[in-house]
Amino acid sequence: MNTRAAVHLSPSDALTALRDAAPLVQCITNAVVTGFTANVLLAVGAAPAMCDLPGEAGMFAGIADGVLVNLGTPGAEQRDGAREAVRATERWVLDPVAVGALPVRTAFAAELLEHRPAIVRGNASEILALAGAGAGGRGVDATEGTDAAADAARGLALRTGGVVAVSGAVDLVTDGVQVVRIGGGDALLTRVTGGGCSLGAVMAAFLGVCEPLDAAVAASTLYAAASERAAARSTGPGSFAVALLDALAEVAPAELEDRARVERTAVGTAGGR
Amino acid sequence: MNTRAAVHLSPSDALTALRDAAPLVQCITNAVVTGFTANVLLAVGAAPAMCDLPGEAGMFAGIADGVLVNLGTPGAEQRDGAREAVRATERWVLDPVAVGALPVRTAFAAELLEHRPAIVRGNASEILALAGAGAGGRGVDATEGTDAAADAARGLALRTGGVVAVSGAVDLVTDGVQVVRIGGGDALLTRVTGGGCSLGAVMAAFLGVCEPLDAAVAASTLYAAASERAAARSTGPGSFAVALLDALAEVAPAELEDRARVERTAVGTAGGR
Amino acid sequence: MNTRAAVHLSPSDALTALRDAAPLVQCITNAVVTGFTANVLLAVGAAPAMCDLPGEAGMFAGIADGVLVNLGTPGAEQRDGAREAVRATERWVLDPVAVGALPVRTAFAAELLEHRPAIVRGNASEILALAGAGAGGRGVDATEGTDAAADAARGLALRTGGVVAVSGAVDLVTDGVQVVRIGGGDALLTRVTGGGCSLGAVMAAFLGVCEPLDAAVAASTLYAAASERAAARSTGPGSFAVALLDALAEVAPAELEDRARVERTAVGTAGGR
Repeated sequence: MNTRAAVHLSPSDALTALRDAAPLVQCITNAVVTGFTANVLLAVGAAPAMCDLPGEAGMFAGIADGVLVNLGTPGAEQRDGAREAVRATERWVLDPVAVGALPVRTAFAAELLEHRPAIVRGNASEILALAGAGAGGRGVDATEGTDAAADAARGLALRTGGVVAVSGAVDLVTDGVQVVRIGGGDALLTRVTGGGCSLGAVMAAFLGVCEPLDAAVAASTLYAAASERAAARSTGPGSFAVALLDALAEVAPAELEDRARVERTAVGTAGGR
Repeated sequence: MNTRAAVHLSPSDALTALRDAAPLVQCITNAVVTGFTANVLLAVGAAPAMCDLPGEAGMFAGIADGVLVNLGTPGAEQRDGAREAVRATERWVLDPVAVGALPVRTAFAAELLEHRPAIVRGNASEILALAGAGAGGRGVDATEGTDAAADAARGLALRTGGVVAVSGAVDLVTDGVQVVRIGGGDALLTRVTGGGCSLGAVMAAFLGVCEPLDAAVAASTLYAAASERAAARSTGPGSFAVALLDALAEVAPAELEDRARVERTAVGTAGGR
Repeated sequence: MNTRAAVHLSPSDALTALRDAAPLVQCITNAVVTGFTANVLLAVGAAPAMCDLPGEAGMFAGIADGVLVNLGTPGAEQRDGAREAVRATERWVLDPVAVGALPVRTAFAAELLEHRPAIVRGNASEILALAGAGAGGRGVDATEGTDAAADAARGLALRTGGVVAVSGAVDLVTDGVQVVRIGGGDALLTRVTGGGCSLGAVMAAFLGVCEPLDAAVAASTLYAAASERAAARSTGPGSFAVALLDALAEVAPAELEDRARVERTAVGTAGGR
């Protein structure tokens, strides 16, 4: 089994390490974003493999440096593949797309949660629903600010022993004790399908080089920097998506430090939930 | 059940209404175009959700503002999802991809037709085949002009009680009584996969704000205007697809009026078929 | 059954013939690259149809001008579709994605090989694994140079009676007797998902107009020329993918002759393996 890396790295050092290591990232993800997600991983410098087949997914998770399980279109065959994978690695990210609103994936997410994802990444509605504290949004919409899910996120992190990342205008990442907020980025990212889903994949890539909290923060910071670069060059959502891939490939590690608006807030005892 | 909107709107008013409402559009569509279709809907201002799973698709159709059922790659699991959805809403679009040429989807389209789609959108070969008046093309090709399918389209519309939209160099939309033709656009749209499929999704989005004939006409008009904008900025099919997404986001409602080449032809009694 | 074309054509003549014929290309391919592959085929001038459904795939293969079977995400339903297709045509390309590394597709590739693909296209690791001479890479990576797979490719070609194409910095194509090398291109192609998969689809398109060795060489040469054009205009992997589609549509047949670095090496008796 691939156990979690214990290495602490700043976002810029994590990006350098990722590009050096070219981690192999297994994506068990939805049919809408597979191509874009693979292109994001290639742009970042990782090696994507969209291996979700029962009979292969578990074996592959054992050699992958990071694994994403995204519940956007969880057909029966893919659910079996995901079950294999999460038993074979600790370095995995759960993206509970539309959990709360839809019953099949909601039940499946609860099942997967028992296998303790290193990172859970979702929008506020999804995190609230997964933590049992909300009824779910109307699917992929982020209808609430990330702060609304801060307590739910901290409670969920304590339950899984991992990290929870809430995506929004300001991203929030927590391991139940520390809370990190990453601002910046650009709203055009919400006009591109797979913007959030591919962020989860990049978190899985960073799991190959550092520990979960740093991985989630590095990915969010990289996305903020790259989104700003891309927005400066684009004239709408189509050109933004193209420019984002270029930007993810060309962002210098130092840009993550200079642009980061990271606050690490020690919150005393973890009283969430 | 989501019943059909009875509101009459011009293309420009419909576009304004769509951007205000951000309708939730459920897409049960083919594996080739899911990403592009979601990006088109986001560009237009709608909220896409590619929810096609049995056990979820019917429930979701009950809350979606419009639903697309596209038969491009109708696997067994997806067919079951589609069956659920069409029982839960009246606001749905059927896109009978390659019907006539291929037996599984041809039989399935006939089954779905009984659930009375608000709009059927296809090329002339597909509409002729679905109406029982042709043998089907060789798949996704549009090998005949839309006028060749005018009678078949009118007859099919009378049979379903809905609207039929035939896509081609000049789009034709009919409810069996009125016939509307929309010219313009650009042939580059036929060099991008999902050009037609995503048009069907946009019709489903407009079903969230106006009645079916206006919805189909608004979508075709928007595509004509956006395609012309995009063609003016692109150097081939790759850059056209990118520019189309930008154009769909930036087209002003007034451009639909100024650019529309819409003819509403009262055709007396509906003698089609 | 569609039997193999016996026509010999140079790359430039093959491109002219392809654009004239607009061959119908059936793609049974993976979920990651379906959209990009269809766009590549449209850009080249072919007519793509992603028909992989049991009950349809065999019938369609009988009318298609070329068929691709790509093993990137071979779910159970798709495997049944592929089985139908390869029985209905001789004009098919096998792309054994990640064979050797993963058991389900490795067994399935061995089964398909008995149906004698006109062309097998893969990277060196995949060809070595398929020929029984290697243990497979870590998925989609090309971790070895194409020359390392030259003997395996020749032996495999003699076994199938077809052509084997090994993709890499220098592409290698062989029918077991002749060996053709095509250099050029650009490394950015390896940063776009579906770069290799879509090359296999273009080989299937050329199978509609010429014999297998010429088809594989024409496709590789076209990709080298178009990749160089695209790289000259792009600023990263995102803009490269867009520019590649534009370039595939605009490359003039004469550019394939001028740019080709093709060596046809008679190797005497075929002593491979």
